Amino acid sequence: MSSYAIGVDIGGTNLKAALVAREDGLLEQTQRPTEARKGPEHVTSQITGLVADLIDLAPSDAVMGVGIGAPGAVNWERTTVSHPPNIDDWESVNLRASLQSRLGRSLPIIVENDANVAALGSAFHGAGRHVDSFIMVTLGTGVGGGIIYQNKIFRGSTGGAGEIGHMTVDYEGPFANTGVGGAIEGYLGQRFLTRHARDRIVNYPDSTVRDLVEGDLEQMSPRTLYDAATQGDEFAQAMLAWAGHKLGCVLGSAVNLLDIRTIVVGGGVSAAGDYILDPARDVLPRFVTPGLRDDLQIHREDLGNEASLLGAARLAFEGKDAQVGTR
Amino acid sequence: MSSYAIGVDIGGTNLKAALVAREDGLLEQTQRPTEARKGPEHVTSQITGLVADLIDLAPSDAVMGVGIGAPGAVNWERTTVSHPPNIDDWESVNLRASLQSRLGRSLPIIVENDANVAALGSAFHGAGRHVDSFIMVTLGTGVGGGIIYQNKIFRGSTGGAGEIGHMTVDYEGPFANTGVGGAIEGYLGQRFLTRHARDRIVNYPDSTVRDLVEGDLEQMSPRTLYDAATQGDEFAQAMLAWAGHKLGCVLGSAVNLLDIRTIVVGGGVSAAGDYILDPARDVLPRFVTPGLRDDLQIHREDLGNEASLLGAARLAFEGKDAQVGTR
Repeated sequence: MSSYAIGVDIGGTNLKAALVAREDGLLEQTQRPTEARKGPEHVTSQITGLVADLIDLAPSDAVMGVGIGAPGAVNWERTTVSHPPNIDDWESVNLRASLQSRLGRSLPIIVENDANVAALGSAFHGAGRHVDSFIMVTLGTGVGGGIIYQNKIFRGSTGGAGEIGHMTVDYEGPFANTGVGGAIEGYLGQRFLTRHARDRIVNYPDSTVRDLVEGDLEQMSPRTLYDAATQGDEFAQAMLAWAGHKLGCVLGSAVNLLDIRTIVVGGGVSAAGDYILDPARDVLPRFVTPGLRDDLQIHREDLGNEASLLGAARLAFEGKDAQVGTR
Repeated sequence: MSSYAIGVDIGGTNLKAALVAREDGLLEQTQRPTEARKGPEHVTSQITGLVADLIDLAPSDAVMGVGIGAPGAVNWERTTVSHPPNIDDWESVNLRASLQSRLGRSLPIIVENDANVAALGSAFHGAGRHVDSFIMVTLGTGVGGGIIYQNKIFRGSTGGAGEIGHMTVDYEGPFANTGVGGAIEGYLGQRFLTRHARDRIVNYPDSTVRDLVEGDLEQMSPRTLYDAATQGDEFAQAMLAWAGHKLGCVLGSAVNLLDIRTIVVGGGVSAAGDYILDPARDVLPRFVTPGLRDDLQIHREDLGNEASLLGAARLAFEGKDAQVGTR
């Protein structure tokens, strides 16, 4: 008999969930607005609703567990989420206990950092499935990261490993949201990348970007830059190449430290694809010590949000004892 | 019965070896000049001589194996050393096979990167012995690194993990020996640190450093800076603080990626001790994402070269199956 699990992705805007069959993959998807300003009680209640709906869609007693990808810090036991950015008043919530109580049953529930969950999805279903070890980078509102080492999530001492977004590429660089100077998130985070571009468009009076945003540069997004780059716009290509250079630099530091040579890049900003990744590929070897330069690979993750839902469900399939991710 | 192992440290200037008892630690030490310009055959022969001498000093058949810390890249199987810096004409040498053949016996021989060996020594006998996971940094001619994670050496995909010296702190920074721009070795490596200081002493006409080197600034070493700093010299203190700031920056990146909060600093330059480490401690939290700032520790390793010899012997005690370092 095929077994089922539910994967949940807690986003700042939407809560998404999917019913996943171990053999057949994603069966049903559903979502609700996060309404993050209403606080943790409300958000937890919304998650419970999504999960209950999907349990009803599965054959009775066939759902073996729930995996949840959450922003913020997740504790070592993978039960509790602390200080997720973008959700008001959320100090520390034991999601496992809260959901079990609300659902009225002791269904196994495993919580994991969302970037780690995306890496797990990629490891089982995406661009990471051909290698045992890779570094996952998610380029979105912020810059997230996860490490898959020998088919497991590398969690560090407390479950917080993989914070690539806060690695610095310039000890005197600009400050990202977290106050870390020169953190890569301060270059590649959506807001920072577009601000950098807005400051520089003055030198490109003929850029297509102006037309794409109908003159309102506040509307510029990485997507705009990608669209303009695709149309051959020199300004947009230069901005994305600038971002790719910084990405290659930080990935070089990560390769030096981990000796993991495959990198998978996902997340919304990665839609800009090779306009960012080719420059990153070009400079990466220059930021890696010669002994580790062979077989460097940067792949794009094309699964999109599915990677997170599949990865979250995989948490439940693999179970608590598997320490996550053993294939 | 107590068991014995031999630890070897291959340095650019001297080859050192020790007979180590599992219970009693270091029993005998011996060394020979590396004479690196004579090439790998000669160096291997010298190592064999050291090992044979120590085997003769131990009770017969009591030596269970030889562990060797080597500069350069060591393969995954821990037999072969490739391209060690500072030894002429050394392409790739299977030290295990070579030593077994020269010794005429199949004694277990395990080779490991010298920075990893120093970390192992610290893990069992030094500043790292109270924690399960730590980042080891060795400040010497170059900047080396090793990662102990859950009581084992974290080796990465090919055995090359922990190359902290090549992590960058400035994407447009100066080039270290390996050609990596802004690599920390280009700031803290002995030659780079003293060059930085020499360039700046012009602004400190009264610095004690001039007296300590009798006017010959080419003779300035990190040791000179430390001696002058200890005497209250403002210039020397400023130079070491500058180095500590860069060290704190790169360690912040490493903490973000690994979620390992304890750092152990060894090697010759670490003699400058708190003049480097206090500034590093000050800035470290600023380069770490807030969620990982608790319990950050930077310790100095006081064992010195003994850490390497003890760590190398430990390779033999732990054996091949133990995947190194399980206590």
